[in-house]
Amino acid sequence: MAEKLTSRQTDYSKWYNEIVVKAGLAETSAVRGCMVIKPYGFAIWEKIQSELDKKFKETGHQNAYFPLFVPKSLFEAEEKNAEGFSKECAVVTHYRLKNDPKDSTKLIIDEQAKLEEELIVRPTSEAIIWNTYKNWIQSYRDLPILVNQWANVVRWEMRTRLFLRTAEFLWQEGHTAHATKEEAIEETILINNLYADFAENFMAIPVLKGLKSESERFAGADETYCIEGLMQDGKALQLGTSHFLGQNFAKAFDVKFANEDGKLSYVWATSWGVSTRLMGALIMTHSDDNGLVLPPNLAPIQVVIVPIYKGLDQLKKITVEANKIVSDLKSKGISVKYDDRDNFKPGYKFNDYELKGVPIRISIGPRDLENRTIELARRDNLTKSVVQLDSVVIQVQKILKDIQLSLFNRAQNFRDKNITEVNNFKEFEKIITGNGGFVSAHWDGTIETELKIKNLTKATIRCIPIDNKKEKGKCIFSGKESAGRVIFAKSY
Amino acid sequence: MAEKLTSRQTDYSKWYNEIVVKAGLAETSAVRGCMVIKPYGFAIWEKIQSELDKKFKETGHQNAYFPLFVPKSLFEAEEKNAEGFSKECAVVTHYRLKNDPKDSTKLIIDEQAKLEEELIVRPTSEAIIWNTYKNWIQSYRDLPILVNQWANVVRWEMRTRLFLRTAEFLWQEGHTAHATKEEAIEETILINNLYADFAENFMAIPVLKGLKSESERFAGADETYCIEGLMQDGKALQLGTSHFLGQNFAKAFDVKFANEDGKLSYVWATSWGVSTRLMGALIMTHSDDNGLVLPPNLAPIQVVIVPIYKGLDQLKKITVEANKIVSDLKSKGISVKYDDRDNFKPGYKFNDYELKGVPIRISIGPRDLENRTIELARRDNLTKSVVQLDSVVIQVQKILKDIQLSLFNRAQNFRDKNITEVNNFKEFEKIITGNGGFVSAHWDGTIETELKIKNLTKATIRCIPIDNKKEKGKCIFSGKESAGRVIFAKSY
Repeated sequence: MAEKLTSRQTDYSKWYNEIVVKAGLAETSAVRGCMVIKPYGFAIWEKIQSELDKKFKETGHQNAYFPLFVPKSLFEAEEKNAEGFSKECAVVTHYRLKNDPKDSTKLIIDEQAKLEEELIVRPTSEAIIWNTYKNWIQSYRDLPILVNQWANVVRWEMRTRLFLRTAEFLWQEGHTAHATKEEAIEETILINNLYADFAENFMAIPVLKGLKSESERFAGADETYCIEGLMQDGKALQLGTSHFLGQNFAKAFDVKFANEDGKLSYVWATSWGVSTRLMGALIMTHSDDNGLVLPPNLAPIQVVIVPIYKGLDQLKKITVEANKIVSDLKSKGISVKYDDRDNFKPGYKFNDYELKGVPIRISIGPRDLENRTIELARRDNLTKSVVQLDSVVIQVQKILKDIQLSLFNRAQNFRDKNITEVNNFKEFEKIITGNGGFVSAHWDGTIETELKIKNLTKATIRCIPIDNKKEKGKCIFSGKESAGRVIFAKSY
Repeated sequence: MAEKLTSRQTDYSKWYNEIVVKAGLAETSAVRGCMVIKPYGFAIWEKIQSELDKKFKETGHQNAYFPLFVPKSLFEAEEKNAEGFSKECAVVTHYRLKNDPKDSTKLIIDEQAKLEEELIVRPTSEAIIWNTYKNWIQSYRDLPILVNQWANVVRWEMRTRLFLRTAEFLWQEGHTAHATKEEAIEETILINNLYADFAENFMAIPVLKGLKSESERFAGADETYCIEGLMQDGKALQLGTSHFLGQNFAKAFDVKFANEDGKLSYVWATSWGVSTRLMGALIMTHSDDNGLVLPPNLAPIQVVIVPIYKGLDQLKKITVEANKIVSDLKSKGISVKYDDRDNFKPGYKFNDYELKGVPIRISIGPRDLENRTIELARRDNLTKSVVQLDSVVIQVQKILKDIQLSLFNRAQNFRDKNITEVNNFKEFEKIITGNGGFVSAHWDGTIETELKIKNLTKATIRCIPIDNKKEKGKCIFSGKESAGRVIFAKSY
């Protein structure tokens, strides 16, 4: 605790890993690439979950739960989807262990318990869900189906990082079925907008909304909408995706519906998801060299009160005032903790709550008691102010709102300053290898050009922004015609 | 929909399966033994989750998340636990598929991607969690750890039934660590009481609290507390268990803490869980030949309003009144649905909501409009009454409370009537092979007797009740000394 974090300037990646571990968010486990989400980190994830879940339900979605395993034959059915995920999936082949005849304390696989068909631990659930929807859908009256599930999924990534890329992660995946193409596209966009609204107004993370290029699309999708954030180190992070799946899964699983005239057509599909990756975005958007910085909406503890005292007598008097503040704040729905642990010094506590990103810290000392004041410290800008005891509640309410807004504004300013328009490849390379950020450039629309740029610079097309101005130009790489600018960046 | 359910009398097991499927709670999937929990069923499970989660947090527990997989070497570490679960576990052996060279549309296992160490899909998480706690615990200051997780687990059961016994199921598992034996036992009992309170006062399911006999204990526990319910067919169902794990896992994973004097001791542990099995208990406690019966606390829709009309003109007038009722009930926090679908007849709707267990059905017809009344039907006792429009809200509130209570009382009467004290094995057999139920009998305390009784009658010791009167006697089977009566039953 005493040692400081590595600074962002020194090593951004190391700084990130240290925050995750030292703030008690998550840690690596005995299982390669799988993380343990610790109570403090999970409490933040619960706030993300609960707000998103509310938004999904408000827009007519219901939760359900589908199996963890996908039989190989179903996994294969949608070819592109299978191709996209088959290289990194956990495969269950047996259903029993037995004692090792050579060492009775050890267990080995019982070869007699080999599965007839291998099971894939779901990397995503389109296959198992569309195989189920087949039985749910006969007529137009059965549509739309608007279902979401909160689940764990497994993708056997070779290089993993806590929250950003782990073999197992938690997410929600929505899977909807529609009678018309238009309705499915509307749903895809509705959800992408919902994600953007959530990221900006709840997590205080500004995002660009856009479409993925063909090579960055979800495997099995006709179109992928996304929201992209810009992290402090100039790299982009995809926060969420919403896929228009066309009739690909309906065709793979033979899901048809009869319209009012009895005519059969394939069903239209969408799927969409956000994951524990959002935790990584949260950290890399707001935090600083002192530790985590949390928007009040996501803070498990919004206000901490630390007594500053010599002797139990002083502590008692401070506790009387602190308890009043606690109960006043709680009555306003503010989560507050009074930390009167006697075996830790105030300085230690200050550091710890700073590291953990608690938005407001209140300290009360003997002089405060005399003056009927407290000291209030803001985590976002590290400023302190003296507040009259009788206006603490109003001030805290006001400042929590202000922190939420200020964090968004700060992140948005940073993001906006780091969108650079370039008009030739030299400029492009200079920015990408320099401060990075989003680079807005003309592109000829071909996969070849996209790949060449990626190979040369590691930058990819993050999205074709939704609100792109219609401006024709020349591709910065090939010089060919371009219909409009797209956003490039290096990314997580 | 038109066909009736199989009656309970005719075939209880068939009745159960039909309710689960026809009420839209769950269905089987393409994965052997794994279920799909459908939106209506999942909405009930969410209510169970949310209330339990609140209770866990009120008693100081925090949620976290641990990996889905357990490396085989960790799985082996606690010998009894490993032995108990190794015969029915899903084993991941590979992390990649490749195209089948013989058929490009097929995928096969890539043998080059064999894991060095097999991973077990968690059947329960003691091993992975205690391996993690090892790093969290150094001193008495790190204790207690009071952590819970909501997760999916997999046990490769050979004979599965929706909700009651499935290969994958959803549950919560609490895992706590303590400095003293007494504190750990206190926690075990606290949770068992929390479960009992939840079952009785939220789910309206009366339970017996007790201890498991040695042979029915959790693999790796020193003592297992449980709550046991009695289903309508006279069979018992274990609703939840709370285990005192002693120092077994601390020893297996070498987890020690230093006390205030620096002396090292092994940590004491508990674990406890309830699962989607509770859904089975819910169905088999309250439902009837017309379908599901839901206690209002668990009903996704507490009140449904069905208009009875000829022509759209009547419908319009009824809708005006219905909308008023909807908004009045919603303002009281009651979940209500107005079903004005024109393509379904009232009779169809009545049956459907009966099947789905909606506690109160309100119907409004043209004569009701004239008389300023509605007809109110209770799902629990199938009675109907006419209620004045201006007292609907008060009546609904009153009746919802009454249904919740009546369901509990009805179930408790049934349970109490079906606890039979017997004093010899002939009586015992007669009851067990007859109506079943809980049979209270003296037992000599040996595993041999317990097993013999099980082999002869299929009855097992469900629990040694906590509030057992201290009454010495003779074992009904062996005639040997007995310290008190225990509860036998056939069980799910």
